[in-house]
Amino acid sequence: MSKVRVESFSISLDGFGAGPDQDMAHPLGVGGEDLHQWFTPTKTFQTMHSEMMGDDNKDGSTGIDNDFAARGFENIGAWIMGRNMFGPVRGPWNDSDWEGWWGKNPPYHVPVFVLTHHEHPPIEMEGGTTFYFVMEGIHKALELARDAAKGKDIRIGGGPDTIRQYLKAGLIDELHIAISPIILGSGEPLFEGVDLKKNGYKCVKSEASKKATHVILKKQKQRTDLYRKPC
Amino acid sequence: MSKVRVESFSISLDGFGAGPDQDMAHPLGVGGEDLHQWFTPTKTFQTMHSEMMGDDNKDGSTGIDNDFAARGFENIGAWIMGRNMFGPVRGPWNDSDWEGWWGKNPPYHVPVFVLTHHEHPPIEMEGGTTFYFVMEGIHKALELARDAAKGKDIRIGGGPDTIRQYLKAGLIDELHIAISPIILGSGEPLFEGVDLKKNGYKCVKSEASKKATHVILKKQKQRTDLYRKPC
Repeated sequence: MSKVRVESFSISLDGFGAGPDQDMAHPLGVGGEDLHQWFTPTKTFQTMHSEMMGDDNKDGSTGIDNDFAARGFENIGAWIMGRNMFGPVRGPWNDSDWEGWWGKNPPYHVPVFVLTHHEHPPIEMEGGTTFYFVMEGIHKALELARDAAKGKDIRIGGGPDTIRQYLKAGLIDELHIAISPIILGSGEPLFEGVDLKKNGYKCVKSEASKKATHVILKKQKQRTDLYRKPC
Repeated sequence: MSKVRVESFSISLDGFGAGPDQDMAHPLGVGGEDLHQWFTPTKTFQTMHSEMMGDDNKDGSTGIDNDFAARGFENIGAWIMGRNMFGPVRGPWNDSDWEGWWGKNPPYHVPVFVLTHHEHPPIEMEGGTTFYFVMEGIHKALELARDAAKGKDIRIGGGPDTIRQYLKAGLIDELHIAISPIILGSGEPLFEGVDLKKNGYKCVKSEASKKATHVILKKQKQRTDLYRKPC
C-alpha cells in the first residue's frame, strides 16, 4: 500500500522547522535557509537545481546526506504542501500570478496538492508538475493525492503546520527528519503540541553526517483507517 | 573567570529533557532513563557508579560519548539543581529524611545548591558533597555557588525547568546537550519559551556517536553582569 511520507525535513536544535518572518527574501523565514546546509551541496539537490535553471551542472556531494536527500524523491506519486510553502501570498489570491518559488519547471514532476482556504484554478507547469488547490482540508487533499499517486507514495512537503496537522490526524507513516546543528531561536516548531509517542511513532534509525543527524520515525501501530473518509 | 555550565544534558528528538510522571520508580519521568543510553555505558558513569556502590568495577566505554561525559566533571567547583532533580518529595519537607537519589556518597564531591521554596537544613554526605537548600531564587543560588566554587566552574544539573530559568536570565555560559534518538512524546521540554538566538547562543560544535548527537552551545555576547546582584 502506498505510504504517506515526510522526507528531508530539517529542524534546528531548538526544534524549529522554519524561521520567523517569511517573505519573498526568506522563503523559509529568517535564518531558515541554514537548516538546509546539509542538503544544498548534495548531488540530488544540485542536479535538481540545474534542471530548474536549465544548465548542465551535475556536480554535488555523495555520501550520507545525499543518500537521504535522494530517498526523498524515490517512488513519490504526489505531493501535498501548505500554502505558505507554495508562496508568500496571504489571504485571497485575487489576480496573483504567483506560480511557486521554483520557476517554470518545478522539481516535483507529479501532481502537487496545495492546502488553502481560497479558491484557485490548477496551474500546469513544465515537466509534469501541476499545482492543485484544495480548500476542503487535509483529509480531502490526501484522498486526491492518493488517487493521483496511482499506488506510489505521497510526500508531505511542509511547512511545519501542515506536517503537524497530518501528524495529529495520525496520517503520516514515516518521517525523515534532519537535525541541523543550528539555533533559530523562534519560528515554527515542528513537534509542538504533538505527542509523537501517543501517536505511535518510534525512532527506527539514526545516522549522522558532519552536517546533520538524520533520523527516521515510523508509525508503529497497524493502521486500518487509511482509506476511511472523515466523518 | 569561572563559567556556568550545563553538561551531559540529554533531550529526546521531540525536545523533552525529562519524561512525564516523575516518581520513585521514574526519577527522570516515564521513559526518561532512555535519554541516557549514551551515558550509562561510559567509563565515566561506570566508575562513578561503582564508587557510589562501593565496588571495584572500573569498566566502561571510551570514545566520543565518554569524552563528553568526562568533560562534564572537569573543573566543577559547585552544582546547582532544582528540587525535582534532588528528589520526588513535593511541598514542605516536614520530617522527610530524603537525602537524594545517590546514596551515602553522591557523585558530586562539592557543594550542591538545591532550589526550593521550603526551608531545609544542609545535608552533609560522605565524599565532600553537601546539599544546601536555597529559597531565595536562582540569582542567590548562583551567588552562593560561585563563592563555594572558589574560581572553578558551576554546573547547572537540571531539571529542564531549572535550566530554562537560568537560560532566560542569560546566566549560562555554555551547554553540552546530547540529543538521544528516542521519542518521549510528553514531559518537560528543555527549550520551550526560551529564545536561544535572542539570548546570544550559538552552536559551536556538533559531534555524533552511534548513540547520541553531542552539541555545544555557547553564549556569544560579552557579558559584564556576572557578578552583579539582581535589583
